[in-house]
Amino acid sequence: MTQLIQARKGIITKEMRKAAERERLDPEMIRRGIAAGVIVLPANINHKNLQPLAIGRGTRVKVNANIGTSPDYPQAGELLQKLEQAIAAGADAVMDLSTGPNIAQIRRQVLAASPLMVGTVPIYQAAAEALDRYGAIVQMTVDDLFRTIEEHARDGVDFITVHCGITRQIVQNLQKRRRTIDIVSRGGALLVGWMLYHERENPLYEYFDRLLEIAVEYDVTLSLGDGMRPGCLADATDDAQIQELLILGQLVERARARGVQVMVEGPGHVPLNQIQTNVEIQKSLCRGAPFYVLGPLVTDIAPGYDHIVAAIGGALAAWAGADFLCYVTPAEHLGLPDAKDVREGIIASRIAAHAADIARGLPGALDWDLKMARARKALDWQTQIKFAVDPERAKAVRREKNPGERQECSMCGQFCAMKIVAEALGSEQFPGC
Amino acid sequence: MTQLIQARKGIITKEMRKAAERERLDPEMIRRGIAAGVIVLPANINHKNLQPLAIGRGTRVKVNANIGTSPDYPQAGELLQKLEQAIAAGADAVMDLSTGPNIAQIRRQVLAASPLMVGTVPIYQAAAEALDRYGAIVQMTVDDLFRTIEEHARDGVDFITVHCGITRQIVQNLQKRRRTIDIVSRGGALLVGWMLYHERENPLYEYFDRLLEIAVEYDVTLSLGDGMRPGCLADATDDAQIQELLILGQLVERARARGVQVMVEGPGHVPLNQIQTNVEIQKSLCRGAPFYVLGPLVTDIAPGYDHIVAAIGGALAAWAGADFLCYVTPAEHLGLPDAKDVREGIIASRIAAHAADIARGLPGALDWDLKMARARKALDWQTQIKFAVDPERAKAVRREKNPGERQECSMCGQFCAMKIVAEALGSEQFPGC
Repeated sequence: MTQLIQARKGIITKEMRKAAERERLDPEMIRRGIAAGVIVLPANINHKNLQPLAIGRGTRVKVNANIGTSPDYPQAGELLQKLEQAIAAGADAVMDLSTGPNIAQIRRQVLAASPLMVGTVPIYQAAAEALDRYGAIVQMTVDDLFRTIEEHARDGVDFITVHCGITRQIVQNLQKRRRTIDIVSRGGALLVGWMLYHERENPLYEYFDRLLEIAVEYDVTLSLGDGMRPGCLADATDDAQIQELLILGQLVERARARGVQVMVEGPGHVPLNQIQTNVEIQKSLCRGAPFYVLGPLVTDIAPGYDHIVAAIGGALAAWAGADFLCYVTPAEHLGLPDAKDVREGIIASRIAAHAADIARGLPGALDWDLKMARARKALDWQTQIKFAVDPERAKAVRREKNPGERQECSMCGQFCAMKIVAEALGSEQFPGC
Repeated sequence: MTQLIQARKGIITKEMRKAAERERLDPEMIRRGIAAGVIVLPANINHKNLQPLAIGRGTRVKVNANIGTSPDYPQAGELLQKLEQAIAAGADAVMDLSTGPNIAQIRRQVLAASPLMVGTVPIYQAAAEALDRYGAIVQMTVDDLFRTIEEHARDGVDFITVHCGITRQIVQNLQKRRRTIDIVSRGGALLVGWMLYHERENPLYEYFDRLLEIAVEYDVTLSLGDGMRPGCLADATDDAQIQELLILGQLVERARARGVQVMVEGPGHVPLNQIQTNVEIQKSLCRGAPFYVLGPLVTDIAPGYDHIVAAIGGALAAWAGADFLCYVTPAEHLGLPDAKDVREGIIASRIAAHAADIARGLPGALDWDLKMARARKALDWQTQIKFAVDPERAKAVRREKNPGERQECSMCGQFCAMKIVAEALGSEQFPGC
């Protein structure tokens, strides 16, 4: 029985209890959210070492890190280093998006090593294998695709991205009305290529029930992919995107009816002033399903700094109600991220998520900031470093820029406002942070 | 005659014309904005090599970089490197906040080398000299302070931060009702220390007319400092901050009446959900004066990453109407930024400013993104690098991560969505970007 089916029966599972405990939330609140479909708890019955977390209404905004090999960087060792980095940097989830060789073997290594929930995009493997087997991605059969999906489910993958919402109708519309950048979703592009070649409907849409049967058996959470997500500001919130979202909303209902947990993926490249609208239209059309956004990126012009661009959009999206942020690294649009990029991306997303938690009034979110503020006033560097989102970085910068380790820092030295004011107004002592 | 006085007389000065030209705006629009006080054009009559820029309504959001020596890092050479870095990275203004030795000499070097408008905080020099001369900052006299301000004006400083709004009343209120972090403004702290020691009113408030006489003579734009800006989220939008803002609004009127250009500085540490309110209350109380914000920082917990924290807040603030973003570097809260930090801080702020320009519908802002998007679709790396906010960085990352320099990047390789879609849908050629 999936978490959703159990939640509807009024059962608080041990996963719900654990997830509630990790956020100091009421397990009954989690159960009710799952039953209503506004919370998902991705926890494949075969992912044995998972530390479960809930995603959705009333919970902390979560952060996902995409890791994976690529044909140019096929080493499993590097991938596992990125997984370690993701865990250390405080990600809540990882997606193994490997497209290099030995995808299945690598996935099993990731699952074995990851206490974080693990997501995948099965069509990457199906496409890579079709290329090997038949010499062309479009020769992939419907059975190949579903066999791969079932393999991922059986291996213990907690959530899978499936681009079920790209219908023939949408592709025909796209042919008539081209976009500035038509499609930037890899999975979306693979499917569209297949659909046009075979002149057939999207198998993930046509055989959605087959997908649901796999998902319900292993309790795989479906992450309905947005193959039509805008890949530049000029394409944001356009017909193609909203047509797909309408389909995704209908699929959310069908998944829930079958007892399958489901969340919905969102853009992409979106200007600041359209982010709230994007979140609200998703929440409305997709019946409150948790919203998993990639970015959003609020400008197209900053390759090398897209983790910052995504932090701006992610903070705003999460404040408006997005539940799950897919990180973007400084390598985005330029190449495959390395372990250092993974860290930068996760910290940027965690900052965005936390800023949104505060803005949303998540109970307890502001306590963290208060501890930091008090340590700052007291010029207590040890406590400041302890409570930094990345203590290692804070410690290194502090040390590098303050060789003597005096009490004030090298920005102001004897002109330190904290010291001057403490002398002028008298200092208050705070009980240990 | 100041730009403001001339604008009121209907004169379009050569600075207005130049500033308009640099942004492809109508010079008459700039003149009208200056006359109404919603635009400032900081251009000291003695800053000979200045390339003027307008700040305020209808213009591009501007970015300032704080540079300066400190007692721990007193080298003028390092400061001038930071100035070069600021110019190269695309800052619109620099503030020389030096507190190390030879402040006056360093400032003159900065002014001689800077085509960007230059701001200062004269009380730093007055305080440093009082320390040298009398052995204690509080021994600074009112005449010392005004003599220093006049020196800055005569040297050609385009705008000065003056914390005129900290009245005795506000300090008394602060003594009664302490904040989590009372004061984080250096200038504010120096003044409060002085006021409490002497039991006197803030000289910048008491003798505001004397300040106006200096400003009008050299056309120094006043940047009314927010000595009570919140230094942590817990202090945001509180009594002390708003009391000071009320005073600043009154001083805006007095400055304008004397023909002095004036803008107003703002926070600081502000949660996401209070940023719009902060901008709107400033615009209302300060009669539409251009708003110059430091950050805002949307969380306190990210030392080492505060450029990202500030980019989130800055984008939102500028979208809501803030006109001028003071950068924050990764070194903030830890030590004095070096040239590398300066670059990181400026790029992060420029991203925020540009995202806001797009959201505000600034004519032409989106064109930049469109050029990038088209180059991306065409997998035209040269053009992508050319239009990157930091071409050097984009080029370096591209090279590092794609040793072979194939057409696709190492993220997707043969699974590149652009290629798959171009093959499936047919590729459109765009005339050169």
